[in-house]
Amino acid sequence: MKIGLIGATGYTGVELLRILARHPRQPEVTVITSREEQGRPLTAVFPALLTLANYDHLIYEAPELTNLFGRADIFFLAAPHGVALTLVPPLLAQGLRVIDLSADFRLKDPTVFAEWYQPHPAPELLSEAVYGLPELYADQIKGARLTANPGCYPTCVILGLAPLLKAGLVAKDSPIIIDAASGVTGAGRGALSATSFCEVQDSFKAYKVVGHRHTPEIEQELFALGGRPFKVAFTPHLAPMNRGILSTIYVQPELYLTSNKLRDIYLDFYRIAPFVRVRPLGFELQTSEVRGSNFCDLSLFFDFRSGLIKIISAIDNLSRGASSQAVANFNLMSGYPETDGLLLPPLKP
Amino acid sequence: MKIGLIGATGYTGVELLRILARHPRQPEVTVITSREEQGRPLTAVFPALLTLANYDHLIYEAPELTNLFGRADIFFLAAPHGVALTLVPPLLAQGLRVIDLSADFRLKDPTVFAEWYQPHPAPELLSEAVYGLPELYADQIKGARLTANPGCYPTCVILGLAPLLKAGLVAKDSPIIIDAASGVTGAGRGALSATSFCEVQDSFKAYKVVGHRHTPEIEQELFALGGRPFKVAFTPHLAPMNRGILSTIYVQPELYLTSNKLRDIYLDFYRIAPFVRVRPLGFELQTSEVRGSNFCDLSLFFDFRSGLIKIISAIDNLSRGASSQAVANFNLMSGYPETDGLLLPPLKP
Amino acid sequence: MKIGLIGATGYTGVELLRILARHPRQPEVTVITSREEQGRPLTAVFPALLTLANYDHLIYEAPELTNLFGRADIFFLAAPHGVALTLVPPLLAQGLRVIDLSADFRLKDPTVFAEWYQPHPAPELLSEAVYGLPELYADQIKGARLTANPGCYPTCVILGLAPLLKAGLVAKDSPIIIDAASGVTGAGRGALSATSFCEVQDSFKAYKVVGHRHTPEIEQELFALGGRPFKVAFTPHLAPMNRGILSTIYVQPELYLTSNKLRDIYLDFYRIAPFVRVRPLGFELQTSEVRGSNFCDLSLFFDFRSGLIKIISAIDNLSRGASSQAVANFNLMSGYPETDGLLLPPLKP
Amino acid sequence: MKIGLIGATGYTGVELLRILARHPRQPEVTVITSREEQGRPLTAVFPALLTLANYDHLIYEAPELTNLFGRADIFFLAAPHGVALTLVPPLLAQGLRVIDLSADFRLKDPTVFAEWYQPHPAPELLSEAVYGLPELYADQIKGARLTANPGCYPTCVILGLAPLLKAGLVAKDSPIIIDAASGVTGAGRGALSATSFCEVQDSFKAYKVVGHRHTPEIEQELFALGGRPFKVAFTPHLAPMNRGILSTIYVQPELYLTSNKLRDIYLDFYRIAPFVRVRPLGFELQTSEVRGSNFCDLSLFFDFRSGLIKIISAIDNLSRGASSQAVANFNLMSGYPETDGLLLPPLKP
Repeated sequence: MKIGLIGATGYTGVELLRILARHPRQPEVTVITSREEQGRPLTAVFPALLTLANYDHLIYEAPELTNLFGRADIFFLAAPHGVALTLVPPLLAQGLRVIDLSADFRLKDPTVFAEWYQPHPAPELLSEAVYGLPELYADQIKGARLTANPGCYPTCVILGLAPLLKAGLVAKDSPIIIDAASGVTGAGRGALSATSFCEVQDSFKAYKVVGHRHTPEIEQELFALGGRPFKVAFTPHLAPMNRGILSTIYVQPELYLTSNKLRDIYLDFYRIAPFVRVRPLGFELQTSEVRGSNFCDLSLFFDFRSGLIKIISAIDNLSRGASSQAVANFNLMSGYPETDGLLLPPLKP
Repeated sequence: MKIGLIGATGYTGVELLRILARHPRQPEVTVITSREEQGRPLTAVFPALLTLANYDHLIYEAPELTNLFGRADIFFLAAPHGVALTLVPPLLAQGLRVIDLSADFRLKDPTVFAEWYQPHPAPELLSEAVYGLPELYADQIKGARLTANPGCYPTCVILGLAPLLKAGLVAKDSPIIIDAASGVTGAGRGALSATSFCEVQDSFKAYKVVGHRHTPEIEQELFALGGRPFKVAFTPHLAPMNRGILSTIYVQPELYLTSNKLRDIYLDFYRIAPFVRVRPLGFELQTSEVRGSNFCDLSLFFDFRSGLIKIISAIDNLSRGASSQAVANFNLMSGYPETDGLLLPPLKP
Repeated sequence: MKIGLIGATGYTGVELLRILARHPRQPEVTVITSREEQGRPLTAVFPALLTLANYDHLIYEAPELTNLFGRADIFFLAAPHGVALTLVPPLLAQGLRVIDLSADFRLKDPTVFAEWYQPHPAPELLSEAVYGLPELYADQIKGARLTANPGCYPTCVILGLAPLLKAGLVAKDSPIIIDAASGVTGAGRGALSATSFCEVQDSFKAYKVVGHRHTPEIEQELFALGGRPFKVAFTPHLAPMNRGILSTIYVQPELYLTSNKLRDIYLDFYRIAPFVRVRPLGFELQTSEVRGSNFCDLSLFFDFRSGLIKIISAIDNLSRGASSQAVANFNLMSGYPETDGLLLPPLKP
Repeated sequence: MKIGLIGATGYTGVELLRILARHPRQPEVTVITSREEQGRPLTAVFPALLTLANYDHLIYEAPELTNLFGRADIFFLAAPHGVALTLVPPLLAQGLRVIDLSADFRLKDPTVFAEWYQPHPAPELLSEAVYGLPELYADQIKGARLTANPGCYPTCVILGLAPLLKAGLVAKDSPIIIDAASGVTGAGRGALSATSFCEVQDSFKAYKVVGHRHTPEIEQELFALGGRPFKVAFTPHLAPMNRGILSTIYVQPELYLTSNKLRDIYLDFYRIAPFVRVRPLGFELQTSEVRGSNFCDLSLFFDFRSGLIKIISAIDNLSRGASSQAVANFNLMSGYPETDGLLLPPLKP
């Protein structure tokens, strides 16, 4: 299996290379692209990858289609939003398969896409693209030409809510409140004042308090799970850490149910999911428990005082929220077991 | 003015000394106590305070009442919960005044106190004690014998909600959701596995997800402000930072109102409050903006999508959430301007 | 006293404003400049400073000389290297006094300056400028028109070595080895990849291992203290923290001497220095002990095993290494006590 | 191959389990011990390891010899210093093989051991034990009954100095100066004030400035490499990070040599070493480049100004400085390739 990686200078691109380096099927990375680093060796830009796998010979190339055709069987697109809009149609037309890590093909409804981004140039592909969350769509992913790899916050939130929504346990007319904190890799590798060390260190910040672009993606999948629209209040925060998302989700349940019963519903829903770990009752979850891994860990609480359910959901934003989930999708699309190369123990501490 | 400090080895005690060192009235700290450090000089335990003010001669003494009577006009109690229960009655009986930084005298209702802690040995003092939040109770604090200095989370949350509650703008029958993250000084100075560097660093954690002891304190003051009980869902988190609390509060309003209108209500409520800063519309608040200061900064949002108000409130948990607020109470009780010694610019970065 | 601040958007500029806000002489900041932020209020760029002192009305102006003449009695230049080369001569010509925080006037020898930077356009000012290290040059600073505020590493290192050099205790022909670690504010406020949060967090780095520009400044002052040239091996490191420099200095002594004797030499040298604190024997010094303060703390060791002296010296790079030291120089130049506004207790933790 | 792990609650024990979980030979961990956690499942104490490998059934047992005999072919001892002194002799007597991660068997000379620790109860084993640094002792390790896994600082320092010493390039009579900074996992998992989050965060500290116990271990190996004793001045520091050691080593060379020539000597010495990466000239090394991996990265400088060589050496203190190096030794002792299970890409960022 030959792999092409478009946009190989961001954190998600490098994380992909980190994971693929240990993949037991030894897929060959044949082409990596970057406009800025064109002509430089991969390991000059990312020396941490030196001497690993077959990476020492990789040289960045321009992201031109003529550089890509025939070079790989499957392409990972880890480029900024907008790039995939242009590249995906010709790649598919050549019979190639694509896993897109951007938001360009995640939304099903072109109207919603236009509202949050711009008019979509290939709306027919929006309906064809499969939303790459293996716990929900494994069968469709297996046959997909184009997999839209979920966003980091949506992955964390949807896995946290799926069992409850499927069971129809969310009260009508009450909003679902999602309060989430992310590590700084979520903001990408570009040099920005807002993500410079001294701005972030020893501080906790609310950002994009209203209107974060992951909102419609979350709403779409909650609708699909629950069979009706849900009002979502989503607030992202920036925590002074490299990796990790912890979401605290507040839901008004249809009926009172014990924490124990609640946990059983989740255990049952995820009983064959290799990457979701439902923790014991009362477990105080933290993001380091999943650092560098593909796990999504969950801890569930019924709060008698307020009558609300509290769901704590934790992932590594860069792994499960992007690159290791992309490898899970690659596994499914390639007919391999979903877990191939992904049972990496978290790096803790 | 002579000051005694009981419990001078924890972070709140040292923070008090840091602030009092620059107080323009030059109050004299005459006695500091600690059972463990008894006999050692203050600056041997906290060398950062060397050569400042009149601290170089201070020696820790045992916290015996006989050591305290006649040594000071006013006592700060920065001891663990429970110590004040025993010490406050005899101190008051000697005609001394007390500012207690623990939770021992914050709750008004002995039944509620017993439910969360233990039966209260001096319930009549619960009704006498003044809740030391200057923005709400400045007049009572001025005449108080016993001021109960508010908890860190409650300070941040109550200041964030007060204008809305006073204006009667919170919808009936909908819970108030409080999602808050704190720095690690909030857990105290003791050596615990859970707050060791490697457990906390580069990780974000939900803890005491249900039943944190600051809940009844918050409920009591929301009731006092709004004139009726409120259901509160409060979730604290631990962020990998030394100082700071950021609360994100979700409220269902009685009626739709613009962010602008919302901000005006807050500006009006806090127009003469020297330590509350209402930020411009859309401001993305972070805790470093208030590091080391007595400020509480607020940023307000109406989220049309969910119909909820989002209030972001930030304080320094150790200063405004404990020690600088105690100095504000000391100022009021001593007839000084509330701001004396407290207009310290935040240390940013 | 009216103050002008040229370059008021970097960390050293803002740190100056933080300190001046609490200065007991209440100097008035009348003009602040910035090319990029021209026309914006100071507190829009640095909201942490809101409501403090007289800053709320300050608006950034262009750094044109015509904007500056007559507006202030003394100017702090906190601009990037090179700006002062142009601005200082006309400011002095107008009879104004200048404290320059850049390296533009620190070196005495134009040849050395040219070797490390560029030919100096005003070499006669190099000899006039006073090196603004109060422990060594207080008398000259008092009468200076132009004070060259020392670099952060040089401040830390020179204070660590001065007593030993003055006592003639450094062995001939053996290099002085200076291994130092700095917080990230030392790299300035610009958005750079190398100082983005995710590159720095949880990592320790050696940088500019050979040829850091603070080397000639250190060499110049060691020569002045010891009366002969010294070979210096200086290696700076970047530590994942906001503030602080800790230097570990290795010196071959002329003769064996106990740690105790060594400490006595330092205590004697600094006996009237209000901002140098010599710690007890064996003290394990860390940078948080001086965070946000003007202190330089020292801990001294004679290592029998290697026969070397080890000097540990700690400062806050932004305060003592730049802005609070500039205020000390301002105090001396203005006839105020050196300590005015500077006895700020370190913010620990 | 069956493995026993004595002392499975510290950071090095858990790191061993993390690495062994992905080992291609699938060694079976059959017994884990801990006095404190006796009877609890491994994954209750370290939930990050949940669902990985065959760990879910592991229960902590008491570290009694009767629990150990016959349970495994090889034992890793990851216990505090002193435990191995007692356990190793009976384990060897049973024909079992041991890799000891403590300092109990690293020093060859019983007199030196007694000077730094206590009289050694089994001095004959000191001479039998092989120092487990594969780059120097691979052949002996292959046949060893008892391998003494090197300390973290010594690993970093010895790999940094070996080529230079072997080449006889260190000047006589000049001390080797070793300035090193470590992450906090190096201090172990116990709850100590000195390693609590708030004491360490945003601060850099020199500790055990004179007389750190890794000194004789370093001296022993430098002697073995250079054929004569060397004076070593070693200063460890604590950096606010979880993992990593960066050593900056200063050496007076016998003769002037260019950085290029210096690098060639290292490239040649390590040309077949899979885990030592010599970086390009001028490379500014940082610890995150090796995070979570078995690599030792080196960057070499000749400083014309001081005439000294500067060697920068970086490892992960927990992996290469302890557990992954122990797995390399396990590989060699088991007849597997040294790299089995160890070519893990660093987790960066």
